Amino acid sequence: MVTPIGDIEEISGARAVTRCDRLGVQPYSDMEGGLFRAYLMPAHAATINTVAGWMNEAGMVTRTDGAGNLIGRYGAEENPDAPALIIGSHLDSVYNAGRYDGPLGVMLGIECVAAFNACNKRFPFAIEVVAFGDEEGSRFPISMICSRAMAGMLTEAELEITDRSGTTPEQALDAFREWVYPPLYNIDPRSAARARKDVLAYLEPHIEQGPVLESEDRSVGVVKGIAGQLRFEVIVKGMASHAGTTTMNLRRDALAGAAEMMFTIESIAHRLGEDLVATVGRIEVTPSSTNVVPGYTRFTLDLRSLDMAHRDRAAAEMEQAVRNIAHLRRLSLEWNKLQDLASSPCDKGLTALLETAMETAGFEKRTLTSGAGHDAMVMSALCPTAMLFIRCEGGVSHNPAERVRFEDTQAALDVMIEFVKALEAREL
Amino acid sequence: MVTPIGDIEEISGARAVTRCDRLGVQPYSDMEGGLFRAYLMPAHAATINTVAGWMNEAGMVTRTDGAGNLIGRYGAEENPDAPALIIGSHLDSVYNAGRYDGPLGVMLGIECVAAFNACNKRFPFAIEVVAFGDEEGSRFPISMICSRAMAGMLTEAELEITDRSGTTPEQALDAFREWVYPPLYNIDPRSAARARKDVLAYLEPHIEQGPVLESEDRSVGVVKGIAGQLRFEVIVKGMASHAGTTTMNLRRDALAGAAEMMFTIESIAHRLGEDLVATVGRIEVTPSSTNVVPGYTRFTLDLRSLDMAHRDRAAAEMEQAVRNIAHLRRLSLEWNKLQDLASSPCDKGLTALLETAMETAGFEKRTLTSGAGHDAMVMSALCPTAMLFIRCEGGVSHNPAERVRFEDTQAALDVMIEFVKALEAREL
Repeated sequence: MVTPIGDIEEISGARAVTRCDRLGVQPYSDMEGGLFRAYLMPAHAATINTVAGWMNEAGMVTRTDGAGNLIGRYGAEENPDAPALIIGSHLDSVYNAGRYDGPLGVMLGIECVAAFNACNKRFPFAIEVVAFGDEEGSRFPISMICSRAMAGMLTEAELEITDRSGTTPEQALDAFREWVYPPLYNIDPRSAARARKDVLAYLEPHIEQGPVLESEDRSVGVVKGIAGQLRFEVIVKGMASHAGTTTMNLRRDALAGAAEMMFTIESIAHRLGEDLVATVGRIEVTPSSTNVVPGYTRFTLDLRSLDMAHRDRAAAEMEQAVRNIAHLRRLSLEWNKLQDLASSPCDKGLTALLETAMETAGFEKRTLTSGAGHDAMVMSALCPTAMLFIRCEGGVSHNPAERVRFEDTQAALDVMIEFVKALEAREL
Repeated sequence: MVTPIGDIEEISGARAVTRCDRLGVQPYSDMEGGLFRAYLMPAHAATINTVAGWMNEAGMVTRTDGAGNLIGRYGAEENPDAPALIIGSHLDSVYNAGRYDGPLGVMLGIECVAAFNACNKRFPFAIEVVAFGDEEGSRFPISMICSRAMAGMLTEAELEITDRSGTTPEQALDAFREWVYPPLYNIDPRSAARARKDVLAYLEPHIEQGPVLESEDRSVGVVKGIAGQLRFEVIVKGMASHAGTTTMNLRRDALAGAAEMMFTIESIAHRLGEDLVATVGRIEVTPSSTNVVPGYTRFTLDLRSLDMAHRDRAAAEMEQAVRNIAHLRRLSLEWNKLQDLASSPCDKGLTALLETAMETAGFEKRTLTSGAGHDAMVMSALCPTAMLFIRCEGGVSHNPAERVRFEDTQAALDVMIEFVKALEAREL
């Protein structure tokens, strides 16, 4: 377990980190000895109460919306109704989580506003820092409830879901209003929807949750978009037979066949390159006995790329190769598509602005694909979005071992400040 | 389910089959709708009672020994104490078994004696047909109890084992004596041990339980010996990581590594050839989630050959190749030996005699390795042994779908008759 480090009081990327550390323990966690902050649970309310105070200190006016989102607004220089640049991320966590997946983006948003507030700098647009209540699906069986509420995408059916104890979101919000400050005046998540005219753009700073930046010794990178995902299950049927009495040439070994298939799938993914990733994460064998040649194997394949055509060509090539292997080995094959999620590119113009901000802040440009989903994917339905990735140690996330460096969060803060200034230059 | 076919009454390979079919149902089975005949259970006693009658009809004197073996003796032409050629196999079965694995060898022994008895042919040696009570480990946690008793190999500790209900072999024998005829005068399994001078040789006819004879369109084959078996567990450790955010070149994927290892192991087994078989029968993956790159994989490897040196060279080559793969992929590896059973070659002279008998009976010679264990492996500690394999459909065994053809059991009977005659010629 990590232990909270000493607080850093001045405006900085480091303070964003130490604030995440402070939020990693009770009362900001609902588990002993680790972090679990689920949507609309007591730890979530305690977190909002504290974070709202930090927003106030940074010069923001705070409120909570009908979905349980905390919003801090730093008004525009003139027009009180000016559209807002939203800097957002989520406060909720998986069970036994790391401390930075989500909260770090919120804390960096606060630092960014604090930096401008410290020199009384205002913009033609407002800046809002939004702390979403649910991104992980930490309480209900669907995820990104809060960004979907803000983007106006929640359906009636989605509001009828229940958590494990049978509680609906509305019932959870009703309990939540007793604990939270700023007060929750409204417990209809649909009321959290924002009008397009009120939102200029969305920027999400987030830990990478992957090893790419670390492997290239970079602090930050610009996200081009969120990969489209294909999921398959592959079922291989051969003939179960005695491991001692069935000679090699007479076998129809479903696992040996699957091994060649998996090896080939990996080779194709390496060869096709780009941002393509292919993963076999599960495999089951029947009868699963040391001395029986497997007659049945089932494995999953998860395939992602930002470039949908590239991804689909890869899937087609893999299927053909796998079918050939099955044919040559006298195995029967089922290749079933389980899921097909479209990719979500970030806004080209806004992303270019973020790349420019990186250079202005003194970092070499680097764009990468996000293989994981983020609130930005949802927010892109409401407004132009951009995402900034921050290096995390070993790419480890969803784990108490999640770590970030002060120098990297400072780099992120520097880029964000340059980004806001560049956005002002573009808008003028 | 198979249904018993009509009985065939004349001496023949076909009658051996139909008798196995008759023994495939109650009261010769202790399960409904299938065959389960466990050591010293009521179905075992019922089976002995009926088989003893068939032995008597074939001209044999019957008795049961202290281990619950049924023995039919067809005396020598002169000397009542002449050593015996034992033709043996087992009566017990696995749960939901086929009808021929075991009993067919006993029935063919009876047919063989019946054939000589029909023309009053006796030999300078006796012929005994032995129906072992346990080969499968059908009741107690160890197997081949009955041939080990006869070979004088049972230890004190092995007699203290208990079945699932806590019954010892001695207690089971005590209950068994109430049901069985010929009477069980003795319930000490050690008393079943035979003196070397009383046993000339051991011949075991058995279904192949593999697909080799069928693939070559042969009825029968001579077994050179029983393969030595090595068992390993291979543990591959990499790094679990996010399937979307970990680019291909930064992965330490334990399952992708295991796939290449399994594919390589199979290739080596194919290349080294001979009777070598290599099987990966079980595989486990952690965390076993569709969207997580596996960080841990464990699989088993079962490796067999009659030639111990060949087997051990194969194991060494496989280990080296697997270690290289682990090294190149930055995976850690554990290669643990779980079991090392020596091979058990059949007697060279007796096997040559059986091959000659095959040719005399009109069949081309063919020797093969048994990848599975048999009573002959144990009996080789007592006397020279030989084994005759009989084709079974699809190599299927330990399954109600087990099938043999009349023509193949007739072929086996013809070979056995020639073998006994050749043994007489050699002994004279």
